[in-house]
Amino acid sequence: MRGTGLIDCDVHNAVSSDAALLPYLPARWRRHLDLVGSRTFSPFTKGYAYPKAARFASRRDAWPPSGGLPGSDLDFMRAQLLDAYGIEHAVLNCLYRAPEQRNDAFGAALAAAVNDWQVEHWLERDSRLRASVTVPFESPDLAAVEIDRAAAHHGFVQVLLYPRSMAPLGKRRYWPIYEAACRAGLPVGIHAASTTPGPTTASGWPSYYIEDHTGLAVAFQAQVSSLIFEGVFDRFPALRVVLMEGGFAWVPALMARLDALHHRLRDEVPDLEHPPSHYLRHRIRITTQPMEEPERPGDLVPLLREIGQDVLMFSTDYPHWDFDDPQRAFRTRVPADLHQRIMYDNARAQYRFAA
Amino acid sequence: MRGTGLIDCDVHNAVSSDAALLPYLPARWRRHLDLVGSRTFSPFTKGYAYPKAARFASRRDAWPPSGGLPGSDLDFMRAQLLDAYGIEHAVLNCLYRAPEQRNDAFGAALAAAVNDWQVEHWLERDSRLRASVTVPFESPDLAAVEIDRAAAHHGFVQVLLYPRSMAPLGKRRYWPIYEAACRAGLPVGIHAASTTPGPTTASGWPSYYIEDHTGLAVAFQAQVSSLIFEGVFDRFPALRVVLMEGGFAWVPALMARLDALHHRLRDEVPDLEHPPSHYLRHRIRITTQPMEEPERPGDLVPLLREIGQDVLMFSTDYPHWDFDDPQRAFRTRVPADLHQRIMYDNARAQYRFAA
Repeated sequence: MRGTGLIDCDVHNAVSSDAALLPYLPARWRRHLDLVGSRTFSPFTKGYAYPKAARFASRRDAWPPSGGLPGSDLDFMRAQLLDAYGIEHAVLNCLYRAPEQRNDAFGAALAAAVNDWQVEHWLERDSRLRASVTVPFESPDLAAVEIDRAAAHHGFVQVLLYPRSMAPLGKRRYWPIYEAACRAGLPVGIHAASTTPGPTTASGWPSYYIEDHTGLAVAFQAQVSSLIFEGVFDRFPALRVVLMEGGFAWVPALMARLDALHHRLRDEVPDLEHPPSHYLRHRIRITTQPMEEPERPGDLVPLLREIGQDVLMFSTDYPHWDFDDPQRAFRTRVPADLHQRIMYDNARAQYRFAA
Repeated sequence: MRGTGLIDCDVHNAVSSDAALLPYLPARWRRHLDLVGSRTFSPFTKGYAYPKAARFASRRDAWPPSGGLPGSDLDFMRAQLLDAYGIEHAVLNCLYRAPEQRNDAFGAALAAAVNDWQVEHWLERDSRLRASVTVPFESPDLAAVEIDRAAAHHGFVQVLLYPRSMAPLGKRRYWPIYEAACRAGLPVGIHAASTTPGPTTASGWPSYYIEDHTGLAVAFQAQVSSLIFEGVFDRFPALRVVLMEGGFAWVPALMARLDALHHRLRDEVPDLEHPPSHYLRHRIRITTQPMEEPERPGDLVPLLREIGQDVLMFSTDYPHWDFDDPQRAFRTRVPADLHQRIMYDNARAQYRFAA
């Protein structure tokens, strides 16, 4: 028996103001927030984020009438997204600035507060919702503690990392996160965002948002290579990884290049158990938004097939400006079986949705 | 009963060529060295090191007649340093490029090879010698493994880190190193060198070696602040730290500033058990080379007294160009008791010299 619903693998709930987190912070960190406040590594939270904070990151119609930021009002999210499209499950990725904190212990306290806030205000209020665990992933030992703690709630279905990290995510410093994710039975999701103070391209800071946004696809490709070649998938056989908002048209080219080079350069990574494409096909899943839109719409289906029928999972990215409407995301006819897998089956197999 | 000898706390032995390490590398990493070679994060080992590699870093008379780099020939080191000055003990700091490797596992293998080479060619050949353990400290878990392994040899008296690191050394990612150092009963020594690809000043890359060399004192001050305020000394009560080749005239100013600010900003670091100067006086030791030389030589003694009689430990930095001659390092008369502590007693108390 197959479900026929729709699963949205990338929805953003927002903390409207730090005040919303105060009930979930210990006295010490409430005081710290008041005295010192947020201090991040990442320039993206220093006022020159792309797009310009919540204002231009969101659909103009996504500002809730109740006030607060887009994504901060569950009732409005129900009306605009969950009810409107008959969504069976949605995975929330809260991009609050806990992982970027310079003060490691404060970042961990903020992450725990975000997760407790998600339980009370989202997961316990709508059975369709699931969420990613926010973790201070640049302090992997503290991230592991938070994964162990948060995973006890069935509503958390994934651990949240960012592709523009302080170091490639395959490096051994991050391994305690993967160990904890496997212990909890959760995949690791990497969603477009940043912790690093470093520039967003390999040749420095670009001038335009269009470059920044395109660059995300490049950042994800580097992370895929790192996870594969550092041996993360071999070391953690239960680990699954989800890439969110980094595109997917690059997958066939990356697989071909990695396999070809691995064939000739395998002496450098002699312990790798499989050709690189194996890990992409079997251990990595990718959300669809922003949907690739080839010049000739019909070119999309061959691309989808080349990537493989099990890899892609539909997402809207609600409430952000480049939202993909579930009914219009594909500008071409996708065969029913493949459509069903992308819109529902693949996510169902990846995440724990049973209560 | 007091010894009357001389202890030199910073001497550099050199690996003349990678070939010298081959006997200590497993087959896999010999092959890697041959195929891939050294690939570092740090620009200092990429051909624009200051000073220009071994050539200008060393005294012109320090090139051994046997060939090879300055510091690579034990007999010549005996003649120029150990015998010439009647040195009772010397602490070797081998600055081979193991800690800067981008490939974590290769860096660990190189570090182990350096340590095994030091045992066979230095520690077992002259009972006056002691050495620092080379560790891949940007992979703290691997560094801890190497500390546990190397510390079994009594000749290793210290763990070697660099001040221009990838992150401030107090950050929790480095804590496994301090845990292992305490387990082994060894202090951690921080010696002028670099792992980071980042610029050497807070405002980018300077133009001149004179700026680079002066900047070391700044790098050390940042590390002292990090170790104190991240709570490393409180968390590891047995930990002792040695600063090498970063100067010491800045110590009183730093202590005063840290104490004054801590008095007013302690809410940010409420767990700190003592005023910052306490850690500098009781947990940190500093080697003397390059000796501070005030315009009026007589100003040195009040500075030495202000720093405290237990803090400074004499070093020559042999065979480098700015070598301090034990008989001429002080351009003023230092009181006998203080002189004895700096030249001998303080090092004797800090390191394990008994066989």
